[in-house]
Amino acid sequence: MSEKPAPSRLGEFSLIERYFAPLATSIGAAHLQDDAAVFAPDTGCELVVTKDMLMAGVHFFENDPPFAVAQKALGVNLSDLAAKGAIPKGYLLGLGLSDDIGEEWIAEFCRGLKAVQDRFGIDLLGGDTISCPKGPLLSITAFGNVPIGDVVRRNTAVAGAKLYVTGSIGDAALGLKLRLDEGLAAQVGLSDAERDFLLDRYLLPQPRVSAADALRDYAVAAMDISDGLVGDLGHMCRTSKVQARVILEDVPYSSAASAMIAKNREFLETAISGGDDYEILAAIMPENCTAFENALTATGLAVTQIGDLQTLDAGQEQGTVELIWHDEPFILRGAAGFRHF
Amino acid sequence: MSEKPAPSRLGEFSLIERYFAPLATSIGAAHLQDDAAVFAPDTGCELVVTKDMLMAGVHFFENDPPFAVAQKALGVNLSDLAAKGAIPKGYLLGLGLSDDIGEEWIAEFCRGLKAVQDRFGIDLLGGDTISCPKGPLLSITAFGNVPIGDVVRRNTAVAGAKLYVTGSIGDAALGLKLRLDEGLAAQVGLSDAERDFLLDRYLLPQPRVSAADALRDYAVAAMDISDGLVGDLGHMCRTSKVQARVILEDVPYSSAASAMIAKNREFLETAISGGDDYEILAAIMPENCTAFENALTATGLAVTQIGDLQTLDAGQEQGTVELIWHDEPFILRGAAGFRHF
Repeated sequence: MSEKPAPSRLGEFSLIERYFAPLATSIGAAHLQDDAAVFAPDTGCELVVTKDMLMAGVHFFENDPPFAVAQKALGVNLSDLAAKGAIPKGYLLGLGLSDDIGEEWIAEFCRGLKAVQDRFGIDLLGGDTISCPKGPLLSITAFGNVPIGDVVRRNTAVAGAKLYVTGSIGDAALGLKLRLDEGLAAQVGLSDAERDFLLDRYLLPQPRVSAADALRDYAVAAMDISDGLVGDLGHMCRTSKVQARVILEDVPYSSAASAMIAKNREFLETAISGGDDYEILAAIMPENCTAFENALTATGLAVTQIGDLQTLDAGQEQGTVELIWHDEPFILRGAAGFRHF
Repeated sequence: MSEKPAPSRLGEFSLIERYFAPLATSIGAAHLQDDAAVFAPDTGCELVVTKDMLMAGVHFFENDPPFAVAQKALGVNLSDLAAKGAIPKGYLLGLGLSDDIGEEWIAEFCRGLKAVQDRFGIDLLGGDTISCPKGPLLSITAFGNVPIGDVVRRNTAVAGAKLYVTGSIGDAALGLKLRLDEGLAAQVGLSDAERDFLLDRYLLPQPRVSAADALRDYAVAAMDISDGLVGDLGHMCRTSKVQARVILEDVPYSSAASAMIAKNREFLETAISGGDDYEILAAIMPENCTAFENALTATGLAVTQIGDLQTLDAGQEQGTVELIWHDEPFILRGAAGFRHF
């Protein structure tokens, strides 16, 4: 780590020695005593690298528990790697701290990092800590291994492929709605358990790391869903020059999400266009669907076919996404595109 | 790049297509149409990776020209790579933008990135753009190639080695003083050219990329000087368990810096303890000094011997730095440790 100013109460070197160095156990990290780390992809592999930044008040709430913030920050990066078919290896941590952030926050944050490291067998490689006027700010660069030439792209989808998603869709966006409106859970008749489930899905995204192998083996294209199913599928279509049809009643919703959707059509819109799912969207050719489903099921991940990809309509240049709800076209009424709160 | 919210006036996709995609020409960057980049070290090499974050109002002035901010942000990262003996390859860019930052700023910033890319033959690999309450915020992760096992560390210095620095020391810290106190240049009798030289040395650090080969060949330890010569040498000593002696009149000062130092002892303190030099500090065994000097001189870089390393005094555990000024011990009167303004 380099020595940019850290919050005055805690010198950066104490921070590193006490909290970050124990997270950096690889030889190449050199106990974080240097300005740079050294590493290489595994034999026969190349590196997949991704960078996601998270800002307090934009990507998470300032009063979110730091243990959860750490898991989210690492999780969203590992989600990108998984969607590319990569096995996570390590990460760099950029941390912006304002004066109001104390040692307790940092200790809990590092405990969260450690939990993710242990779960996925990854390691802190290095990073930087700076002062900033308003924090915490997290900038994570994550690395994964993928066999040379096997990365799964999102701009390689083709007409005829079937669309799949892992897990369930919309929980996090509905959880965010519940978080922003305390009375909403009672109003829509959710049980405490249903409410807590949705709140947790927002707070603690689960990167689908175990999907990576099956994606490399069977997906013609894949991406993680971070900005809403409809929007992200739109990106896949646009970059792949195809169009998509999604059968909305085939999309997997959790029982808590289903309870909300049954109350109000608006919640269906939220579920399919809201962000922070961190599930994986994959395009699979028909002949590989069974093998793909079996491979994912074997890892314990739920996977559901939700539609398919088609050639562009005559005259179209940009892919579009057609939504079907009980045999009728479903038009999103809300503003196009998702923005974090 | 992933789709976190960008400033409302410019969608992130327009930003990427118009400004960032043209900077990302490698196959692995996939025109920035994916959430991740793919790459590998060159044959026979491993990767050196470093991360430095820069925040407006902390690491640069909010009214600094964006063309210069880009060069500084990339430059400080390339400086870290050079000190490790690595040849730069590419970088990821994390960019935090607040609502007050317009397209013109971004266009000029990207022109600055392009200038550095062209100069050093590197490429943008990917990144992320977010909204933040106060920007710009820059988080750069830079990658370089180093032959396997040849990285130059800072914790491997040994007693008996001679200490060298590239370029000149203290210009940036003195330039910052001039920047913060408009009347100071006239007060100390600097010419306009001298003042502008020092201001530029603060604004536009020059990463000593061409030093990398000589460092790999001859240095037992090296680091870049980002937080002041005395402080950074202290880190080298501490991590290497040696102590250092520096002859302050042997330290290379530019003529502009010398003019200030001649006026007031305080400016000597600033020069040797202030930050932002981005010169390289190297420890060279006596038998390699001539070859090292010749190799650096051949690249056009000035290099100067400023002292040496010694075994720890009896009972000492932490390395210390002894400063000598005309045969007398020189004690720093200012606060220990450097903080950015």
